[in-house]
Amino acid sequence: MGENVARKVIADHLVEGEMTPGTPIGLRIDQTLTQDATGTLVMLELEAMGLDRVRTEVSVQYVDHNLIQEDHKNPDDHLFLRSAAARFGLWYSKPGNGISHPVHQERFGRPGATMAGSDSHTPAAGALGMLAIGSGGLDVAMAMAGEPLRLRMPRIWGIELVGELPDWVSAKDVILELLRRHGVDGGSGRILEYHGEGLAGLSSMDRHVICNMGAELGATTSIFPADDEVRRFLRSQGREDDFTELVADADASYDDTERIDLSELVPLIARPSSPGDVVPVSEVAGAPIAQAYLGSSANPGYRDFAVAAEIVAAVGEPVSDQVSFDVNPSSRQILGNLIRDGHLLSLVTAGARIHQAGCNGCIGMGQAPATEEISLRTTPRNFPGRSGTREDKVFLCSPETATASAITGVITDPRDLAETHGITYPRVAEPTELLIDTGNLVAPLPPDEGGHVALRKGPNIATLPDVDPLPDDLELPVVLKMGDDVSTDEILRAGAEVLPYRSNIPEIARFAFDRIDETYHDRAMEWRDGDGHAVVGGRNYGQGSSREHAALAPRHLGLRVALVKEFARIHAQNLANFGVVPLRFVDEDDWNAIEQDDVLRFTGLRDALRAGAAVEVVNVTRGTTLQARHELSPTQVERVLSGGVIRFMKQRLDNAEVDAADRPV
Amino acid sequence: MGENVARKVIADHLVEGEMTPGTPIGLRIDQTLTQDATGTLVMLELEAMGLDRVRTEVSVQYVDHNLIQEDHKNPDDHLFLRSAAARFGLWYSKPGNGISHPVHQERFGRPGATMAGSDSHTPAAGALGMLAIGSGGLDVAMAMAGEPLRLRMPRIWGIELVGELPDWVSAKDVILELLRRHGVDGGSGRILEYHGEGLAGLSSMDRHVICNMGAELGATTSIFPADDEVRRFLRSQGREDDFTELVADADASYDDTERIDLSELVPLIARPSSPGDVVPVSEVAGAPIAQAYLGSSANPGYRDFAVAAEIVAAVGEPVSDQVSFDVNPSSRQILGNLIRDGHLLSLVTAGARIHQAGCNGCIGMGQAPATEEISLRTTPRNFPGRSGTREDKVFLCSPETATASAITGVITDPRDLAETHGITYPRVAEPTELLIDTGNLVAPLPPDEGGHVALRKGPNIATLPDVDPLPDDLELPVVLKMGDDVSTDEILRAGAEVLPYRSNIPEIARFAFDRIDETYHDRAMEWRDGDGHAVVGGRNYGQGSSREHAALAPRHLGLRVALVKEFARIHAQNLANFGVVPLRFVDEDDWNAIEQDDVLRFTGLRDALRAGAAVEVVNVTRGTTLQARHELSPTQVERVLSGGVIRFMKQRLDNAEVDAADRPV
Repeated sequence: MGENVARKVIADHLVEGEMTPGTPIGLRIDQTLTQDATGTLVMLELEAMGLDRVRTEVSVQYVDHNLIQEDHKNPDDHLFLRSAAARFGLWYSKPGNGISHPVHQERFGRPGATMAGSDSHTPAAGALGMLAIGSGGLDVAMAMAGEPLRLRMPRIWGIELVGELPDWVSAKDVILELLRRHGVDGGSGRILEYHGEGLAGLSSMDRHVICNMGAELGATTSIFPADDEVRRFLRSQGREDDFTELVADADASYDDTERIDLSELVPLIARPSSPGDVVPVSEVAGAPIAQAYLGSSANPGYRDFAVAAEIVAAVGEPVSDQVSFDVNPSSRQILGNLIRDGHLLSLVTAGARIHQAGCNGCIGMGQAPATEEISLRTTPRNFPGRSGTREDKVFLCSPETATASAITGVITDPRDLAETHGITYPRVAEPTELLIDTGNLVAPLPPDEGGHVALRKGPNIATLPDVDPLPDDLELPVVLKMGDDVSTDEILRAGAEVLPYRSNIPEIARFAFDRIDETYHDRAMEWRDGDGHAVVGGRNYGQGSSREHAALAPRHLGLRVALVKEFARIHAQNLANFGVVPLRFVDEDDWNAIEQDDVLRFTGLRDALRAGAAVEVVNVTRGTTLQARHELSPTQVERVLSGGVIRFMKQRLDNAEVDAADRPV
Repeated sequence: MGENVARKVIADHLVEGEMTPGTPIGLRIDQTLTQDATGTLVMLELEAMGLDRVRTEVSVQYVDHNLIQEDHKNPDDHLFLRSAAARFGLWYSKPGNGISHPVHQERFGRPGATMAGSDSHTPAAGALGMLAIGSGGLDVAMAMAGEPLRLRMPRIWGIELVGELPDWVSAKDVILELLRRHGVDGGSGRILEYHGEGLAGLSSMDRHVICNMGAELGATTSIFPADDEVRRFLRSQGREDDFTELVADADASYDDTERIDLSELVPLIARPSSPGDVVPVSEVAGAPIAQAYLGSSANPGYRDFAVAAEIVAAVGEPVSDQVSFDVNPSSRQILGNLIRDGHLLSLVTAGARIHQAGCNGCIGMGQAPATEEISLRTTPRNFPGRSGTREDKVFLCSPETATASAITGVITDPRDLAETHGITYPRVAEPTELLIDTGNLVAPLPPDEGGHVALRKGPNIATLPDVDPLPDDLELPVVLKMGDDVSTDEILRAGAEVLPYRSNIPEIARFAFDRIDETYHDRAMEWRDGDGHAVVGGRNYGQGSSREHAALAPRHLGLRVALVKEFARIHAQNLANFGVVPLRFVDEDDWNAIEQDDVLRFTGLRDALRAGAAVEVVNVTRGTTLQARHELSPTQVERVLSGGVIRFMKQRLDNAEVDAADRPV
């Protein structure tokens, strides 16, 4: 029987395990992507491991998340990352060069490659037929050091696209439709592979939109075939040589299947405050808005801005004066082409506020909406408070819907705008001849030069704290008990107040869980010099962003065990990587048998973890006992027991002479 | 003898006093300018006064200082300002529309008008032959209510410009030359009036540069004649009807004189950390830089960006990869014209980070430089830490110098760049046909509509607390006793932690005096429901920034009397404005006779203040008596007695029917 695209790439990179869904595998990693919010920690990890030079084909350090520079901390981080890129042999994408995902697709992605990225939207690269997986920074650091990326073999979910998108409906509506059908954990344990005749109408950047927000379904990753459209895209980027055709065999099969008739889709919108709460735009039309926001890796393409520009140009007057129309170009190259083709001027003339190329408001770095006011965004996420405003009302939609609503001042189905304003749908073609912009990409230094570069550490860049081995016996108070769907944004929020401390674990730990319970930090600190503490959670615990600070910061405060109904995959790995035991209830009802402040006793934990999955937990406060289990591989168990991965890698790199022949050329 | 321009405008607006330098005068005010950082308080003051509608010809509320929107407070302020503009009959310039000063020049300024602005760079409007004066917010609020602006008649300093600027030298170097000659208080008590044949080579926006940074010399304001160039400028803005010729009489004289031969100027630069520490660029050339910054009201013109664009285009390669090249368009209209003419693309291609139109990094809202790294800026000020980075090294220079240095990566005299790169100086002509952008300017509502608009107050915007009239008898504990040279920064500090509460007096009052004594707030609150409290200070009390919050916040906590050896002038005025009695020891040694927590008794205070300067103070705790005096005018006494200017104005507005005939048309 023929193979699908995902399994072809996996087979080509498989270094451990077998391709049976649910079993552990290890993949050789060709490329890595780090951004600044996670990258400073990754670079500190590389330093702590004692790595000399990355062993990947391409590793790129982007600066896109934190560009505000309110004080010295942020620009000091930039200088640190730049020095680390030179030291360890990475490309460096300067602040303001653009969002990692579109820039990577433009300049580095290639069909058939694997990529590990310390950003949950790394799967966007699947648009080129890459297998790109979002991971904790430590996993990415290890991939840079030549370690395989370890995960459980996902199920391959074949999603057949048929038909053509109607006017005023675009790629964002495709992925919103999947979220409407399956919710924010519908993709868990799966790779979403798109196929079918419907692909013909989707450009590579359209596919980027769909792969990018596959992360919102909790998918391991998403992938499209590398077909003629990918060849066209790479040619337009001056990189046709990087093209290799990679398509599913004619008789390929999939573990699970789905079908979307594109011609039946309507403009969709995700309501506050979950990407999974999707309804037709018409259902919420008419509500007054205060902000319309274009940009982010979830709608990064030339088309996504150009279509907005064509709409406002066709309408011919400024957007509603009640609306802040915020335009965030996704890369400087796209900005340049939008200028050249007159689209930027159309947007400015319509009243747009043009922001520098980067993640910006998508990650809560500016452009927060006013209290209780509706913000329509083309971004991928609307978790509560992610915008920077605690009482936010963020809706997610296509550029068409956001622009139509900016014009009218109320949530508007763009098909209605077409009718009221007598305009036809502007189908924007990707330019054949692009301005290529590499001026803000700094190439790696040659090894003999890079080896001598000193890391530049400003006063806010702190050495990683020590993590000690796991004791055998523990008595842990439950400092926090939580329900379902706690996101890493709630465990450790992003935003302007917190992001500047991402290179400083003791400082950033002050914000841990503060959106859920402001007293967490102080209460955790009370137990820090003893055994530490535990937290209890519900289903889909740790969903959302892959930030490993959400594991490292609570660990620094003494978190030893997270006992939950179900983990989001990346967060569970992050916990284990930093020496926190991720445990699941065997019987989910036992969640009811623990209250906050109960004390849990673990006896002979090291042996129990080694012996198998089952762990007995005594609730000392209530005199009850319950069963928990772990899903750690034997390797992961050893790493948790020893206190985490960094110590493990350091020992390996110390012990092994680097064999030059092992390095990819 | 003929009159100069400044005296002509003053004579035309004089409603009190005589035009003798140093004597008090009152000027009728035609226009006002407020920005968001000062405007929220101004609008709360208008509300507290009970003003129905502004009585000026044009009042504009700009939003340019705080555009980051990290959380709800900033966008909530924007909504409040918008509602207040509608309520009181102001124009509203939306966030991102641009910096107040260039936008005002483009859209509202007119020769011969007077303007009061709650921003120290208000004098920039002198470029059009306006008399534009920066003032405290309350003065501007009163001007909106129809009160004259009161000041002492300045000396008129005639500055004759002869010759033509050489290649690579521009308007910024002219004002830097004046700062080099006279330092940061060389303009104190003066109006700088420019004249001479050298004006022919200076565009209106060049003149804006020179007037703007006249504030750095401590001048009352600066002014140019309204000549043919001003007519050309207004014509290019579609406002030729607003032009009136206004030039000095042929035999005009000046109180002081100065002469600058433009042809002898060289590229100049102000070193850290004072605009007055000016040297030729060549003297500091070669030092590595990490940032080059274009923008701000000190170099806001089309030319200032276009010349940079032409330079990088001529060089034909990206700026140094060690440099962050930050471009801050000063208005959306200028941005639009830069796009149209290809200049923005040149800048982007050279690696520029394009920021939204606004003040941004100039007032420390983003783009802070890294620790100890050199930043070259076209902005007007480089006071220590103003950039956001405490250990900053900010140099001020022309766009030519900043761009040349961005290219080389070190401080570079642009004439040297011309030589090394073989390029000729691009003399940029102002476009004859401009794109006019009014889409983000919201016109005042008609009175009958505006009168019904409710002020939109987010959770962080608090109505001004009531201030009650001064009682006749008071017993006040001395809650704080201080020494000499207490600054308003110590009374109420600025900074990112405090500024967001500028629309919330009860909240911002929590920070009052906290750098001196953290317990002040709580101890003051203990006496707030009684008579209130007093503070005792030494010489030069209230030096530094003119911020009104330093009077208003302690008043809110119950401050009734400040008894000191000597006041800094503006702070004493601010105290009186908000109903606090500013008293000086008659015998400075009596400072030693009062300790913190002593109780002071004032008897028959109202009569005493009215009767003359002397006030008797009984130290109840020690059983002693001392003499104090005030330096208030009879008008000021009446205002203090009634509880401050706001209450005074409220009574006036309540009692007087608004006579429509009094309103300017």
